Amino acid sequence: MLKPPLLQQIAAAGPGSWSDDLLAGVITAILLVPQGMAYAMLAGLPPEMGLYASIVPPIIYALLGTSRALAVGPVAVAALMVANVLTQHYGSDELDKIVVGSMILAAETGIFLLILGSFRLGALVSFISHPVLSGFTTGAALLIVTSQLKHLSAIDIPRGDAFETLAAFFQNIQQAQPLTLMFGLGALVLLLLARAPLQKLLNNAGVKHKTAMVLGRMAPLAVVILATAVAALFAKNSSLSVVGNIPAGLPIPSLEFFAAEGWIALLPSAVLIALVGYVESVSVAKVLAARRRQKIDANQELVALGVSNIAASLVGSMPVAGGFSRSVVNFDAGARTQRAAIFTSLIIAIVAVFFTRWFQHLPNAVLAAIIVVAVLQLVDIAGAKAIWAYDKADGAALLSTAIAVMLLGIEAGLLVGIGLSLSLYLWRTSQPHMAVVGQMPDSTNFRNVNRHVVKTLDSVLMVRIDENLYFANAAAVESYLMEHAASGQSPGQPLRHIVLLMSAVSYVDASALEMLEHLEHDFGDAGVTLHLAEVKGPVMDRLLTTKLGRSLVPQRVHLSANDAWNALSTEKN
Amino acid sequence: MLKPPLLQQIAAAGPGSWSDDLLAGVITAILLVPQGMAYAMLAGLPPEMGLYASIVPPIIYALLGTSRALAVGPVAVAALMVANVLTQHYGSDELDKIVVGSMILAAETGIFLLILGSFRLGALVSFISHPVLSGFTTGAALLIVTSQLKHLSAIDIPRGDAFETLAAFFQNIQQAQPLTLMFGLGALVLLLLARAPLQKLLNNAGVKHKTAMVLGRMAPLAVVILATAVAALFAKNSSLSVVGNIPAGLPIPSLEFFAAEGWIALLPSAVLIALVGYVESVSVAKVLAARRRQKIDANQELVALGVSNIAASLVGSMPVAGGFSRSVVNFDAGARTQRAAIFTSLIIAIVAVFFTRWFQHLPNAVLAAIIVVAVLQLVDIAGAKAIWAYDKADGAALLSTAIAVMLLGIEAGLLVGIGLSLSLYLWRTSQPHMAVVGQMPDSTNFRNVNRHVVKTLDSVLMVRIDENLYFANAAAVESYLMEHAASGQSPGQPLRHIVLLMSAVSYVDASALEMLEHLEHDFGDAGVTLHLAEVKGPVMDRLLTTKLGRSLVPQRVHLSANDAWNALSTEKN
Repeated sequence: MLKPPLLQQIAAAGPGSWSDDLLAGVITAILLVPQGMAYAMLAGLPPEMGLYASIVPPIIYALLGTSRALAVGPVAVAALMVANVLTQHYGSDELDKIVVGSMILAAETGIFLLILGSFRLGALVSFISHPVLSGFTTGAALLIVTSQLKHLSAIDIPRGDAFETLAAFFQNIQQAQPLTLMFGLGALVLLLLARAPLQKLLNNAGVKHKTAMVLGRMAPLAVVILATAVAALFAKNSSLSVVGNIPAGLPIPSLEFFAAEGWIALLPSAVLIALVGYVESVSVAKVLAARRRQKIDANQELVALGVSNIAASLVGSMPVAGGFSRSVVNFDAGARTQRAAIFTSLIIAIVAVFFTRWFQHLPNAVLAAIIVVAVLQLVDIAGAKAIWAYDKADGAALLSTAIAVMLLGIEAGLLVGIGLSLSLYLWRTSQPHMAVVGQMPDSTNFRNVNRHVVKTLDSVLMVRIDENLYFANAAAVESYLMEHAASGQSPGQPLRHIVLLMSAVSYVDASALEMLEHLEHDFGDAGVTLHLAEVKGPVMDRLLTTKLGRSLVPQRVHLSANDAWNALSTEKN
Repeated sequence: MLKPPLLQQIAAAGPGSWSDDLLAGVITAILLVPQGMAYAMLAGLPPEMGLYASIVPPIIYALLGTSRALAVGPVAVAALMVANVLTQHYGSDELDKIVVGSMILAAETGIFLLILGSFRLGALVSFISHPVLSGFTTGAALLIVTSQLKHLSAIDIPRGDAFETLAAFFQNIQQAQPLTLMFGLGALVLLLLARAPLQKLLNNAGVKHKTAMVLGRMAPLAVVILATAVAALFAKNSSLSVVGNIPAGLPIPSLEFFAAEGWIALLPSAVLIALVGYVESVSVAKVLAARRRQKIDANQELVALGVSNIAASLVGSMPVAGGFSRSVVNFDAGARTQRAAIFTSLIIAIVAVFFTRWFQHLPNAVLAAIIVVAVLQLVDIAGAKAIWAYDKADGAALLSTAIAVMLLGIEAGLLVGIGLSLSLYLWRTSQPHMAVVGQMPDSTNFRNVNRHVVKTLDSVLMVRIDENLYFANAAAVESYLMEHAASGQSPGQPLRHIVLLMSAVSYVDASALEMLEHLEHDFGDAGVTLHLAEVKGPVMDRLLTTKLGRSLVPQRVHLSANDAWNALSTEKN
């Protein structure tokens, strides 16, 4: 029997790895306690649900997952998606229903991922291109930032897209509560300073790189403790919005939500949450695995994340995934195996049992600042520039997805991005590149006559088709060939043969077959014979079942362009 | 200046062609008078609107269109689409609004086609594959047949999909009115007999083929006259549903409908009607043009059909297109130029002015029979079988489209078909064919090791990628190559080089570029060097803007597979 992934990881990491894992587990827990509560707030849920999502699901993932460093728990984008769908279906006063809705979403997310895993359909997510994912993440991060403006300022901002929210914020800026602003902006400044500036300072002061990093990671918890203390001492009876009472204790698994309503209504959103969470998890898992020359099994990840989400639903929590920035922290802190995640879980369980009342004076504005700083790391301007430089179409897909997310929301924006990237690809394949080719001197290679100095035959036109032949490009290919056949190879010399080089054609569908039959027929009328060369095996197999294929074989199907050249150049012209 | 298309056609056809055109025009008119009224009924409109659509729009098309034989006028599928959208928006008692809605649809159809034509976007319709179009036409024909059951039987059948309608028909069969059934079934039988059986009979009796055909084409009008006479004489005061009073005269152009409401609401349906009408028209125009070695200009067709539809709206009529069976009749009757269509129009104008009252006793059941027989010709079982035999995916798209049209209706069915065919293509490209290749003996050609007896090098793996590299297949390509790199070329021999043959790769998008960068990196770790060969010009241009491309050039980019082979086989292994 195969060893469970976790035991394999521990065996591979060696006996000395447990102290690395312990340190990484502690640091990740320090980050995750405030983040868990903050993401629950982002999802419109009570803070303890974020903690619960950080206890059991990571243990499940640790046992089943193939990534060593992925830190599973609540994540920002999924939290905002949960908030969007639940506020659509329930009023803000129906907290009971919202909580049950979140559990249903987690369950459906998990079941959907498990189904994908069972049918080995992980490849489905490959239809989300990197540019679309990058644009989506950036757009979602900016949308999340604007969604936190109300918590940072205590301004009452109506629901709207990112730009409307921003406009409403600036229009009503005079309504901002100074106390809330002070906590929110103060936390924001401290958290930002704790990043690059603090690292630089500590490095200059001679502190070791790793120690400096550990100190930097403690910033969110330090800010939380500081802000809570200040709020408890000086703002106890003010209008400052605080986390309030959090029930102490561990979640008790329950199946009651199974009987609740809403399973059908929430399903489409759960599917999107599952896809987004899975893609984010696998992306970061792959990046981290590559750094240590390890591998991720994408299908096993579906199973591991699926079961983790089902566990999240059973303990009354919210959908979970591998968080991008949190996993990087875990990795940088030295996590060697998923044992680190188990240490993290244990620490958070201890917090949930003994220390929740410590957070009752924690201002929500501070949680909002933690969210803003966490998601700002997801904005990848340099990556977007690189993609734009390489391919304008990919760049346009990225930008459009980001704008669509900010304008239309997370779900619609993602769907727009996927649709757009697929449409761009289809449009491209419908306008295939074709090239008239000739023989390179003293060679058997054939190249584009416009790019290379090549020899051609007067009565033979050789055309390379650089795309599969299918319905979307059949008409374009036909008119290209008809035009070139009509104009001929050289003035005054009648064309006798057209050779289609099929080296780039992996598929000829029924529409394209019909087009080839027309071509053969129309060329025949004009005294031009149709030949094929470099036909791939699978394409030839299929062609041989047709009348056209059988009439072309064997004289008019050539193994290579050179064979066709030799056969046709020796012929009397 | 260029001659208008019609004058070019007449000049090309020669002076003797006018008598051919006259005969064809008369025969088509004989067919079109009952068909025009029938399709108006199918669209839920007064019968005269079908006649109006057969007078002015065909003249406009005759002046602008590039097909010699296309018979423009009301068509069955568009008529049903008009009926569907108008009954969705208006009650059955709001005939005024329905009439105006039909004019709006015709105007929007025309404007949309003109816009497509202006931007030379005719290629958009190539995204409707032949199998989808064939499935759509078959499904629509069967849907139309079921929609006529109520007129053939006078059974009150509630609106529903094709299967519900059929079920309701058989459940309530005892409610059928014998008189209606008699006319309906009688007409059906006569019309069916007038096709193949009558032709055979006349041929056997020694009648010339062309004469037999002309006699057969007169059947609808003969049935109409016979049925009207019988109804007028014997069923005048019965409950038989008849056409009733048709106002005599020609349509008077009016712009009043421009001010009506509904332009926005009807737009999506108009777009679909335009696409369907255009595709049907161009398909039949191409088939007929090919038979006489003539050409169709697809963009000019957009303009011609666009203006024809705008004309249809101005004369208070319905969307028009080139009808499939009617154009075939026109062609078979000998139409040489669009002069035939002008003769047809004149005859129908004469009917509209002088003879409409002759039709007041025409039973609607007879018009239903005419519709049924006309659309049954659109059902193409043999074509579907051929497509299924060539390609199961195309066959599945055809079948699914037909079923979707019958279950979900014309518009949704068409969209399902288009979506499905595009998804199937994308799915196929996401699972690319790849082949390990080797050198053919005494040759510079490289072929699949599994299909041919070829030579390979122990330390060099040569892999041909038979698809563009883009986001949907980047992960699949990566894992294929990683697996083959790990297992090596032959046991015990370490792999040193992997050569990717890019002859079928016309495009490498940003996601695939990232994948190649990972590969280069991961292979490097394993002591394997990545090479490219047979890279196409446009792909190489793009690659050279990247770090990966610049590091590969020139040593690791080979012109051909054979060049790579020579470079790597001489190297010390």
